[in-house]
Amino acid sequence: MKILYIDLQTEMSEEKKLADPLVGGRLLTSQLVTELVDPQTDPLGVGNALVFAAGPLSGKRISTGGRLSIGGKSPLTGGIKEANAGGMAGDSLAVLGYRALAIIGNTERANPVVLVLDENGVRIEAGKKYWGLDNETLAASLHQNFGDNYVVISIGTGGEQQLKAAGIAVTDEQGKPFRLAARGGLGAVMGAKGIKAILIQRANLNDHHVEDPSARKSSIEFNRFVAANERVKVLREYGTASTVMPVQILAGLPVRNFSQGRLENAESLSGETMRDLIEARGGMGTPSEACMAGCVIQCSNIFPDEDGKLAAAPVEFETIGLCGANIGINTLDDVARINHLCNDIGLDTIEIGAALGVMMEAAEKGTAPPPYDQADLPHFGDAERAIELVAEIGEGTSLGKLLGDGVVATGHALGVTRIPAVKGQALSAYDPRVVKGTGVTYATSPQGADHTAGLTLFAPVKHEDPETAIQVSRSAQLQRAAYDALGLCVFNLGATALRTDIIQNMLEAHYEIELQDGWLNDLGKRVIDTELAFNHAAGFTKDDDRLPAYFETEKLQPKGFVFDIPHDALDAIWDED
Amino acid sequence: MKILYIDLQTEMSEEKKLADPLVGGRLLTSQLVTELVDPQTDPLGVGNALVFAAGPLSGKRISTGGRLSIGGKSPLTGGIKEANAGGMAGDSLAVLGYRALAIIGNTERANPVVLVLDENGVRIEAGKKYWGLDNETLAASLHQNFGDNYVVISIGTGGEQQLKAAGIAVTDEQGKPFRLAARGGLGAVMGAKGIKAILIQRANLNDHHVEDPSARKSSIEFNRFVAANERVKVLREYGTASTVMPVQILAGLPVRNFSQGRLENAESLSGETMRDLIEARGGMGTPSEACMAGCVIQCSNIFPDEDGKLAAAPVEFETIGLCGANIGINTLDDVARINHLCNDIGLDTIEIGAALGVMMEAAEKGTAPPPYDQADLPHFGDAERAIELVAEIGEGTSLGKLLGDGVVATGHALGVTRIPAVKGQALSAYDPRVVKGTGVTYATSPQGADHTAGLTLFAPVKHEDPETAIQVSRSAQLQRAAYDALGLCVFNLGATALRTDIIQNMLEAHYEIELQDGWLNDLGKRVIDTELAFNHAAGFTKDDDRLPAYFETEKLQPKGFVFDIPHDALDAIWDED
Repeated sequence: MKILYIDLQTEMSEEKKLADPLVGGRLLTSQLVTELVDPQTDPLGVGNALVFAAGPLSGKRISTGGRLSIGGKSPLTGGIKEANAGGMAGDSLAVLGYRALAIIGNTERANPVVLVLDENGVRIEAGKKYWGLDNETLAASLHQNFGDNYVVISIGTGGEQQLKAAGIAVTDEQGKPFRLAARGGLGAVMGAKGIKAILIQRANLNDHHVEDPSARKSSIEFNRFVAANERVKVLREYGTASTVMPVQILAGLPVRNFSQGRLENAESLSGETMRDLIEARGGMGTPSEACMAGCVIQCSNIFPDEDGKLAAAPVEFETIGLCGANIGINTLDDVARINHLCNDIGLDTIEIGAALGVMMEAAEKGTAPPPYDQADLPHFGDAERAIELVAEIGEGTSLGKLLGDGVVATGHALGVTRIPAVKGQALSAYDPRVVKGTGVTYATSPQGADHTAGLTLFAPVKHEDPETAIQVSRSAQLQRAAYDALGLCVFNLGATALRTDIIQNMLEAHYEIELQDGWLNDLGKRVIDTELAFNHAAGFTKDDDRLPAYFETEKLQPKGFVFDIPHDALDAIWDED
Repeated sequence: MKILYIDLQTEMSEEKKLADPLVGGRLLTSQLVTELVDPQTDPLGVGNALVFAAGPLSGKRISTGGRLSIGGKSPLTGGIKEANAGGMAGDSLAVLGYRALAIIGNTERANPVVLVLDENGVRIEAGKKYWGLDNETLAASLHQNFGDNYVVISIGTGGEQQLKAAGIAVTDEQGKPFRLAARGGLGAVMGAKGIKAILIQRANLNDHHVEDPSARKSSIEFNRFVAANERVKVLREYGTASTVMPVQILAGLPVRNFSQGRLENAESLSGETMRDLIEARGGMGTPSEACMAGCVIQCSNIFPDEDGKLAAAPVEFETIGLCGANIGINTLDDVARINHLCNDIGLDTIEIGAALGVMMEAAEKGTAPPPYDQADLPHFGDAERAIELVAEIGEGTSLGKLLGDGVVATGHALGVTRIPAVKGQALSAYDPRVVKGTGVTYATSPQGADHTAGLTLFAPVKHEDPETAIQVSRSAQLQRAAYDALGLCVFNLGATALRTDIIQNMLEAHYEIELQDGWLNDLGKRVIDTELAFNHAAGFTKDDDRLPAYFETEKLQPKGFVFDIPHDALDAIWDED
């Protein structure tokens, strides 16, 4: 396995052998970012790097083993960032013999590029004619010009504009460019580098049998074990939207800019309603689809409009939370329209939904100063105006650009003081006053507020209990960092959280090694330590490991909780026992 | 004379006869903007218009008669905007038979255009290959591909990025693209519309004799009268930099983010020093140059570097004030480097210098929150870092984009409370606590803080006197609005302020009309009333006609003045007597 380095300044590339074949995914992106990027450098400047890494289980016909980690210094948080996505890129990179692709330097603004990586090596093609296209049209154009046999990694007009909520899209098994490595503005980094798209020759895993029988057996055991799990079955049938009602019952949904925890008529946004609509409407709709070849979870979906055409794919829980409940929108059709625009323009639905939330609060409270016109701002529940404004992000209107820079920029510009963000990044769809472990993750993760860095919702604890919050967050953060480093989807956790041996078997069989007790936590800790060191050097202090103060004082109704984890407990989360 | 309307959405164009042949310049842009633009529309959205207008004296071999007014709704202020520039566009438009060009709609983001206007009519050419170029390279490329016989109106990468400090460049008599209609972000509007450049077949005024002898005589009288004036001679010899020492003596320079009124060693930035350096260095340098064919004032210059190569052209007083004194820089060489970068990227030096000033205050006071890194910010006097950052505006780095959005965006993001701006636009290089009439202009002009809308420095009053401030501002605003509506350079005012008859003669002779007493003030009032009505409909109130409160409380040393004009006096400035 090799790492391919590309310098856009000189257009030179170089291959290096991967020192440790077990290193991949988020561990490798964070190591390479640490190696290549001065922590003080400007995330949108020439000194940033953009790193793509597969995990050690990719290209081996292992269900979900081919997630793609993308890393760099985040323009949103100013710290290190890893965002990962499904789709076909990870497995394809691995089959070509690469664990990672590390891009440094920028092209000239006037000459954006498309990178092409296939069995002939890497080449840099002129990308100017694709500049200005959003992900859907872009992928279609690239597939037409280069052939269908390429996975497309791309930015839409959000990344082109270097908006801080811009993500990077990856095509899925069916070729749809809607799997986003969404968080932290890595699409803006790709835009700043002048890379419109990266094409990777698509792997056909059927041609890549694993010869070793014990390795093959370990993979099959894993795939079967995950496939049979009850929690995984729920994801397969209802997608992540299955989480709507449990969080509603906890009263921890983000409602109207995190001002309430429970939504009226939450059923209209539930996984059950979604599945019913998909089945009733038929057409292109499907309640269950794999984003990667061979995935047994198949949590993805295509949500159809009334005519059965693709409205959005996939519709996920966090999008429903932030672009639905958080902005007073209560139909899946409206959520889907926002969702699809974000996918196409290449935007993080969490950041955009949160930014719309503060914009709507500015509308209600009348806080927007000139040049913003109070009358232009949407009120809670104004789906038409919200959808219009998300479309405007792609067009680059004044309010569009503001939203596209995320919740903090929007809140500051419009005079809003209740801004739900940590380290510049919007909170996900779990109110930290109720799901306190996840609140601890928001506060302490080196990734900024991000449920994917340590969601605690499925931990068997009372979520409102401050006593257990640190412990469950720490466990979740280590576990998820490890999965991210392996390139494995965290949705396996429903099956394998307590059966690390099944994953251990695979790693030992495929790599002919022996792992030591506690290897998974150790792996997670290695990731997090690398990231904390980068952030420290970038200037982060303990004061950055805090939720906005209003979460500690403003009671979340109807249950009346506040986020009451002592600051010294937050500060001690990584202390050795 | 005709108005040419172009709709970029449909690519259709239409010519209309100009109803009143005397209407032009700022009056016409403000009328057309009122006609075409919903005051509530987004300045960067498809509903804005971009209007270019020559004045009624253009194309007639009248010194400075061919200034080009550019209008639209400002993305910086949210109100109506007119910014005008010298160069060869106004006369050339007139010779083709057009008083104005009004552009509505936007092109698709993926397909920027170049508009070409010549004796064959107007055509829309693909502009994608020019996207990404800054003004200097762009003008050279366009001249190479289309021929030298075109005037170029263009945006650099500042306008492409829709930055709110982006202006529009116009080529001068020598073909240099450095005459900027700088203020109010009209370059961002051009960028949003996807127009990279507009080419206008260049007029050769020698081929366009005015037949009527009395008209010809009136023009010659005007040209000679202006040329012989003493104040005009100062501008010819020292350029606008001649204003540095008078304002230093008044103690009204903007020093270190408007915190002092007098600069140590101001002589190093003076017009006299500039002239000495230009003469000593020779090479391409010239202390006096016309930006428009036939101009007798010739206030422009080329400031050479130590090797005699062009460092910046022109270097003007406001740039020296904002990009020199205001940021603690005290060599003309450093000012020129910032100046040239701004010209090339297409940025307003006033807005950028003011934004650097608040950024430096953030550096001194340590107020910048994450994701900004306190260590990245320049301190007062750090010319190298300031120059680097201005270059980064073109590259679109995080801090570059912030600066490029102007002083208010920069101040808000970096936690600075002393933000020198009115209606979102930076103050020019005259502290309003000392030059109080100009302070009244900053507060009350429909254009936002802008000395060009009503500079009072040359009025024969005690500038610190609050009693006369309203009256001198009102006179100056009306006078300048009228000159802007005529397409005449306001630098004629040194000669013609008290000799309106000389201009009246020209208008009456060229148009065979009789003007009534008070015609000039009436013309100015018509402009301002049109603009106030637009702003009112856009949502502006009396509260927007205020200087930042700290100018009313923080004494400006060394003289200790505050801005002490009562708010009700500001509110009554346009009341009829």
